[in-house]
Amino acid sequence: MHSLDILMAEDILMAEFDIIARYFSNLLPNKNNIALGVGDDAALYNLSEETQLAITIDTLVAGVHFPETTLPEDIAYKALAVNLSDLAAMGATPVWMTLALTCPQIEEVWLSKFSYGLSKLAEIAQINLIGGDTTQGPLTVTIQAAGLVPFGQALHRQGAKSGDGIYVTGTLGDAGLGLASILGQINLPKSFRYYTEARLNRPIPRWLEGQNLRGIATSAIDISDGLIADLGHILTMSSVGAQIDLEQLPLSEAISTTLSPIEAWELALTAGDDYELCFTVPPNREKLLVDILSTSNYSKIGIIESTPGIRCITPEGMTFTPKGQGYQHFS
Amino acid sequence: MHSLDILMAEDILMAEFDIIARYFSNLLPNKNNIALGVGDDAALYNLSEETQLAITIDTLVAGVHFPETTLPEDIAYKALAVNLSDLAAMGATPVWMTLALTCPQIEEVWLSKFSYGLSKLAEIAQINLIGGDTTQGPLTVTIQAAGLVPFGQALHRQGAKSGDGIYVTGTLGDAGLGLASILGQINLPKSFRYYTEARLNRPIPRWLEGQNLRGIATSAIDISDGLIADLGHILTMSSVGAQIDLEQLPLSEAISTTLSPIEAWELALTAGDDYELCFTVPPNREKLLVDILSTSNYSKIGIIESTPGIRCITPEGMTFTPKGQGYQHFS
Repeated sequence: MHSLDILMAEDILMAEFDIIARYFSNLLPNKNNIALGVGDDAALYNLSEETQLAITIDTLVAGVHFPETTLPEDIAYKALAVNLSDLAAMGATPVWMTLALTCPQIEEVWLSKFSYGLSKLAEIAQINLIGGDTTQGPLTVTIQAAGLVPFGQALHRQGAKSGDGIYVTGTLGDAGLGLASILGQINLPKSFRYYTEARLNRPIPRWLEGQNLRGIATSAIDISDGLIADLGHILTMSSVGAQIDLEQLPLSEAISTTLSPIEAWELALTAGDDYELCFTVPPNREKLLVDILSTSNYSKIGIIESTPGIRCITPEGMTFTPKGQGYQHFS
Repeated sequence: MHSLDILMAEDILMAEFDIIARYFSNLLPNKNNIALGVGDDAALYNLSEETQLAITIDTLVAGVHFPETTLPEDIAYKALAVNLSDLAAMGATPVWMTLALTCPQIEEVWLSKFSYGLSKLAEIAQINLIGGDTTQGPLTVTIQAAGLVPFGQALHRQGAKSGDGIYVTGTLGDAGLGLASILGQINLPKSFRYYTEARLNRPIPRWLEGQNLRGIATSAIDISDGLIADLGHILTMSSVGAQIDLEQLPLSEAISTTLSPIEAWELALTAGDDYELCFTVPPNREKLLVDILSTSNYSKIGIIESTPGIRCITPEGMTFTPKGQGYQHFS
């Protein structure tokens, strides 16, 4: 339940969880069947003795979470993707969603394209739209998604232990490079431009990997705000620290061939919107991991340590500190 | 899942259900455990053989659904109220909600007041906040609420039969009068001004009445867009018509003493935002109704007929046609 303020980082003042915890603490759960409230990627509600419902809600605002020029089909796709990514981080199987769409006016073509983008991802994820509200106003898309998870098997931010390996799916920093390209901050060859813009606008959330990691990963989060920021949530919630081996950061060809190593690390560590999973696995389950994620692209990038903080180590054994530490964002 | 566009009615082009049905039809449910999708006050998801979850989502946009001058505590209160009203119309018991709050900046005082308004109603309704997303942008509040209902006992818009009595809770038109007062279109005595503005900003949804009506009402809807418009949904879904006895429309002292009968009927029939329930009960259950709603304020205002359409009858036996027929609103 978070997404990256890509265009207005200067107004970022306070972490979202702090806002909810600080101002809405008197509203937080006290009922038995609410197993988990605010503070993870999704809330958990006990459906039965066998099953829990994971619930998440995310909003994308035009000009804040995506450039005004973004295509309607990409806006819709991404609004669903960020929610599916939250469900993935909980190890939940997507089941239904509700949509609250606020837009300036009804335009047939725009709505058709928006619906097309939504259905494209919804069909892959096998998630159904069960309710909606359409209102007039500045373009804002809120999707609330729910998924199923076997009782007690949801993945959490809390649970990483010293000695666990730190893993990520896919490659890191592509969405950030795509945004830089769209904003005209970097000139990319055509194929890299297409690839990175697709990674920004049409990420494929890792709900299958999330489900497969149940019972294997000791902690998990989706990378929406950059690796440092999101791994930081795991570390804080688990009261541990981490060492990251920069050479092991998974980089796409688009990044490794257009950026210097330092630029690439900076982007991979701090750029948001990748919607990959970051998770931890103890050494004695590494064999299980290889079996279960055999068809997925993932990398071991470091190790959990007892000393708090994140230490990024270069191939020369030096410590590298990225300029950005990931957003403390208002989004 | 609807609420009234109070300030920008001229832009209203298409009914919300039409938008969802037309543009998102390929996304509508096909899974067995989704018992009811788009088209009623809430969706229904089968939790178990005993229980269903009613799910609704509603957005309020500043300058569209409430004047920009509305107090933060009232905005929050109302954002929850419109959702509780949807749950009430389904006969569901509120259980949890998620909040997506988009606002221009973080202001401590504003957020504290917003939280206070939300908690005031949440405590009464015994509903817990289990998740949220805060984003930066134009002020927009989306709440998604869920409630429990015994399997198969939810109230629906469909089900009214010829001969059923038509009932409403509370009084009608007060919120509309309150809005007219706030907009300076009418000058009310102080006590009426306070009363009607409270009815506009802090309605008390009828979730207890909704729960009590399970097994008694043949159909139900909440009155968010005006009686004619919302009763119209019951009639369309049930393939019936209605006769309304204007003399029986429940009017508050604020309305009956400041407006002419015709003005009062107009408001009671077409003004939105009352968040009362409209429901139908067959003659042989009227006694049950008296018992079950003994502590609630409700009125019989007409009768369901087989001829389509709504006929409003004056005390003199004439037909009255309100100028507004309720909004076909984009909201």
